[in-house]
Amino acid sequence: MAEPVTAAPVAATDPVSLVSADTAARDWPRLVVEEWSPRVDGGDFAVKRVVGETVTVEATLYGDGHEQLAAELLWRGPGSETWQRVRMTALPTDRWTAEWRLEEIGRHEYVIEGWLDIWGGFRRDFAKKLDAGVAQDVDAQEGRGFVSAAAERAPAPLATRLRAWLERLEGAPPELLLDAELATLMAEADERPFRVRSPRQLVDAERIAARFSSWYELFPRSITDSEDRHGTFDDVIGRLPQIRDMGFDTLYFPPIHPIGRTNRKGPNNTLSAGPGDPGSPYAIGAEEGGHDAVHPELGGFAAFGRLVEAARQHGLEIALDFAIQCSPDHPWLKDHPGWFAWRSDGSMKYAENPPKKYQDIVNVDFYGPDAIPDLWVALRDVVLLWIEHGVKTFRVDNPHTKPLPFWEWMIGDVRARHPDAIFLAEAFTRPTMMYRLAKIGFSQSYTYFTWRDTKVELTEYITELTTTAPKEFYRPHFFVNTPDINPVYLQTSGRPGFRIRAVLAATLSGLFGVYSGFELCEADPVPGKEEYNDSEKYIVKPRDWNAPGNIILDIAMLNRIRRRYPALQTHLGTKFFVAHDDNIIWYGRPDPDGGEGMICVMINLDPHNAHECRFEVPLWEFGLGDDGDVAVEDLAEGYRFRWYGKEQTIRIAPDQPYRIWRLTREHEA
Amino acid sequence: MAEPVTAAPVAATDPVSLVSADTAARDWPRLVVEEWSPRVDGGDFAVKRVVGETVTVEATLYGDGHEQLAAELLWRGPGSETWQRVRMTALPTDRWTAEWRLEEIGRHEYVIEGWLDIWGGFRRDFAKKLDAGVAQDVDAQEGRGFVSAAAERAPAPLATRLRAWLERLEGAPPELLLDAELATLMAEADERPFRVRSPRQLVDAERIAARFSSWYELFPRSITDSEDRHGTFDDVIGRLPQIRDMGFDTLYFPPIHPIGRTNRKGPNNTLSAGPGDPGSPYAIGAEEGGHDAVHPELGGFAAFGRLVEAARQHGLEIALDFAIQCSPDHPWLKDHPGWFAWRSDGSMKYAENPPKKYQDIVNVDFYGPDAIPDLWVALRDVVLLWIEHGVKTFRVDNPHTKPLPFWEWMIGDVRARHPDAIFLAEAFTRPTMMYRLAKIGFSQSYTYFTWRDTKVELTEYITELTTTAPKEFYRPHFFVNTPDINPVYLQTSGRPGFRIRAVLAATLSGLFGVYSGFELCEADPVPGKEEYNDSEKYIVKPRDWNAPGNIILDIAMLNRIRRRYPALQTHLGTKFFVAHDDNIIWYGRPDPDGGEGMICVMINLDPHNAHECRFEVPLWEFGLGDDGDVAVEDLAEGYRFRWYGKEQTIRIAPDQPYRIWRLTREHEA
Repeated sequence: MAEPVTAAPVAATDPVSLVSADTAARDWPRLVVEEWSPRVDGGDFAVKRVVGETVTVEATLYGDGHEQLAAELLWRGPGSETWQRVRMTALPTDRWTAEWRLEEIGRHEYVIEGWLDIWGGFRRDFAKKLDAGVAQDVDAQEGRGFVSAAAERAPAPLATRLRAWLERLEGAPPELLLDAELATLMAEADERPFRVRSPRQLVDAERIAARFSSWYELFPRSITDSEDRHGTFDDVIGRLPQIRDMGFDTLYFPPIHPIGRTNRKGPNNTLSAGPGDPGSPYAIGAEEGGHDAVHPELGGFAAFGRLVEAARQHGLEIALDFAIQCSPDHPWLKDHPGWFAWRSDGSMKYAENPPKKYQDIVNVDFYGPDAIPDLWVALRDVVLLWIEHGVKTFRVDNPHTKPLPFWEWMIGDVRARHPDAIFLAEAFTRPTMMYRLAKIGFSQSYTYFTWRDTKVELTEYITELTTTAPKEFYRPHFFVNTPDINPVYLQTSGRPGFRIRAVLAATLSGLFGVYSGFELCEADPVPGKEEYNDSEKYIVKPRDWNAPGNIILDIAMLNRIRRRYPALQTHLGTKFFVAHDDNIIWYGRPDPDGGEGMICVMINLDPHNAHECRFEVPLWEFGLGDDGDVAVEDLAEGYRFRWYGKEQTIRIAPDQPYRIWRLTREHEA
Repeated sequence: MAEPVTAAPVAATDPVSLVSADTAARDWPRLVVEEWSPRVDGGDFAVKRVVGETVTVEATLYGDGHEQLAAELLWRGPGSETWQRVRMTALPTDRWTAEWRLEEIGRHEYVIEGWLDIWGGFRRDFAKKLDAGVAQDVDAQEGRGFVSAAAERAPAPLATRLRAWLERLEGAPPELLLDAELATLMAEADERPFRVRSPRQLVDAERIAARFSSWYELFPRSITDSEDRHGTFDDVIGRLPQIRDMGFDTLYFPPIHPIGRTNRKGPNNTLSAGPGDPGSPYAIGAEEGGHDAVHPELGGFAAFGRLVEAARQHGLEIALDFAIQCSPDHPWLKDHPGWFAWRSDGSMKYAENPPKKYQDIVNVDFYGPDAIPDLWVALRDVVLLWIEHGVKTFRVDNPHTKPLPFWEWMIGDVRARHPDAIFLAEAFTRPTMMYRLAKIGFSQSYTYFTWRDTKVELTEYITELTTTAPKEFYRPHFFVNTPDINPVYLQTSGRPGFRIRAVLAATLSGLFGVYSGFELCEADPVPGKEEYNDSEKYIVKPRDWNAPGNIILDIAMLNRIRRRYPALQTHLGTKFFVAHDDNIIWYGRPDPDGGEGMICVMINLDPHNAHECRFEVPLWEFGLGDDGDVAVEDLAEGYRFRWYGKEQTIRIAPDQPYRIWRLTREHEA
């Protein structure tokens, strides 16, 4: 594909070499296009969007002097060689803008093209001269000269029309040179002198679930009425209606593969399991099979297929765990010893963090002697296998401890075949790595949310995610808890705290996740740790799903309004408002795409005490002055009222620790 | 030059092509190096520094898992092919740092190299295991294996030493594996697996005058005792001692070339000049010659040579104006018509901003039929000619109305021959263009300083220049006035205002400029405009250089302390402090390179009224608490005292509108 002159900078050229290159400078770009957005880094990675969204592109374009410039946005969708073209509109201070709507899942590209707009400049200047009465014959003559030159270089049909215009212009009043139809023809015939192009930018359009989904996590083996009976996929089918009633759309399981026996962990992570202990599902692989097998006690592939289909009928999608570590019994250790690291005495190299050693887990060696391509392809094929069995979404365990090139290749390869595949990174590590994983392909990521409790912490964290570089590529998945994280806040908060954290997660991000037990306000910890006592990772744990004191109604309400209001289907656009109390957090998010309302949330973060404070109603968001008034609908309780004036007062007690309001200028039907 | 694997991102690769490229991922960089600094944009342009400065490089380096990494800074000076290497030190959160000192004028380069530090990781883990008493034979065996492998691949002398170490290790206590000498040898033999490199970054080291100089501008023709007698270069020689006594080091002249007669401007920019009117020196070119000639009434090249030499003996350097426009009488119009734009009726295309037209000025056409390379080379040769005559510094008139590639080529070419050449951009336009001119080669730039009068305006502007991207490449030259700018503030401020603006310019930037008449508090405007009445651009204007009410002593004092204290030789490092009055601005700058003092400046910006306020002494800058105390020397008045405690009060009246203090923990000798 031949590209015209690009905006590639030339400054890096060694100046000494320029001395003998006097004529090369002729080809250096005269115009500058820079500061285009959206982009990730220098354009090295794809901006993340979902289908149906509009991509608004802006760029700075300028050159020497006061010449008239023009610009075009060129974009193309997956697999297309042909650029679609949208003329850009000039904004103040050299900025230009244009937009397009993403209609198709997959990798899109855009570039910005700018050039010297000779005819536009002539029209601008000639109109001014006519207005001032100083236009001369030579000005009009020059204009006709431009038309004549255009007619000469244009393809036949256009040239014919331009020649017809030349005849009309002969002897006509000079104003005719400003004719709009002529301008259109001249734009068509424009050879775009000094054309400059931005480097190609990438935009990845995913399905909406990449940005908006509500996850429920459970251990299938615990869907049972007794700890003595291992739950099955068919048991899970029986629970689907309740999960769907809570409003979730994604049902996620920890690994469902055969569990190793060697060095199996017992209850509460003890080092030796009893004969009846089921082991951790993260010790993947036994003689029954590895990542491509189903744990026999859950049922076989047929049962899994029934579950996927039943879930689909309930509007639920199944997400699986992709955890690469192996138990010492994984078939790969025998079949592919070259995929693992061995010590010089011939022993297995276990995972370790010296002086600690983890003897129930063996890590593959991604750069081992036989690893490339066989191991990498085998791991990819595990993902492809489960996709064949109806799974499109994968939660990836600890991706930050595996090589980045593997993820980039594997996700790229899988999504080239299945563009609707979604990968969620369970990376709890430094921000650099978490952001990098998002850049190289993960659609979503776990976050620090579970450790952000206070108003300041939450405000700073959400502000970073919504206003700095990661806003273009990092989608935060706000889990309120996980099998590994029993948040310290919830250990003492009681039921009000669970409601508070549920509202925060469900309204601060489009991606909201709950690990089962949360809705029952479970919080019994291993003392002094943020782990669950009697962790489900090591046992079968039946539950009373209707236990008193649960917060199922809150969760169902939250998921209901999340589905109804697009403003709640993203973390982007969150604005924090003033509430004069450090316990009361107060934020909102306007309707996307120019809607007229705003979802506003106020929460008392103190689960133990009521707080009362003055706060500001964001009247300015509606173009109203401080004495304006807005219509308010309480989305949790259903009642309606109006606020008159910016300053209001509220008292929020732990028995109803949050308010979710929809603000509009007038009440909606 | 063969380069190893670089940090070039791979995400842009079309994912579809990866499917059949399973093995390619092996070569994708496993480690990430990113966020290196200093840099300009993505590394496309050179960071600006001066000789003698230390370049402190930082970068983020990380990879998967908890592997031990190592990093090196590689740098090389002008013309060198050989990298100098400095091991980088690890900082928290994946950051690494190293530095080097610029010893030579010219273009430097640096890259950052990171790799997996196998031996370092072994030492770290083995030491922990020994400490915990869990080290096994196989651990030591593995360590010896690393040494053995290193001995095999190392060049002969190193291999011999490593083999000797292998013998020593045989049967020795395992602690010997942690030996420092062995670590040094292993580092030498390191094959640096998974090596990754940043792209090459550029650092331009200029002479110090690029960052620190004090300019005085005058029209040589006005150095006369009568408006009837045209001043000469020899007259200017007579004035050099006074200019040097004021402390300036650079003497800058508007164009000194023959002045056109066609359409010559008369006094106050009138359209027709009388027979005795000298015309604007910016209408360059007459039958006597063009840019390569000297205006006859100033004296010839011999006189110019005398002046350059006399100036040098006074410690002054001459700076010339490089203004590319031509008068209609410029010899180039006849000799090189292809360098100019002509209209279709054969008339000359004058500069215009429709409906206005400027008939005394003709612009060259940089992309005209004969322009490349002849015009570009001719313009460069003008610069080279004046360099031959002893001029190394050029103030460039309106560079933003000439093509960027011309400047990039011309400055690059000239500085490849004369690395000490300095170009100052007189670009008053949008920030994008002003910053771009700096990126492509201008050492210094005019600024918005003349239009920043209030505390808020000054604070915001200086903060932008010292803390955002331009800090790496844009050096602001703070002129208090120019022949084109008679600042509105000074038109009504009286003498206190001139002192205020002088102190601001001289202490806020290393580059400080005065156009003659400022020291005499001249401010007579064309009513309602920011132009001087009876502008010197159109007349010969003799002055009484000792007129009462002048501020020569202030200027001499400012330039004296600027020379003495390095903190005043840059705009970088400026910190604004709290003074509780909107009229009182209060800022400081620590000694560079870890000095122990700080220059602090307080100014009452109101030239008409005294103001009194509380303010904070920046005790925290000295590691002191709020009740600490510091030694203070008043650099203007010479007296000394101490401040006890952070909160102080001051009253500043227009009769002495500023204070310049040096703060130290103890009084200096």
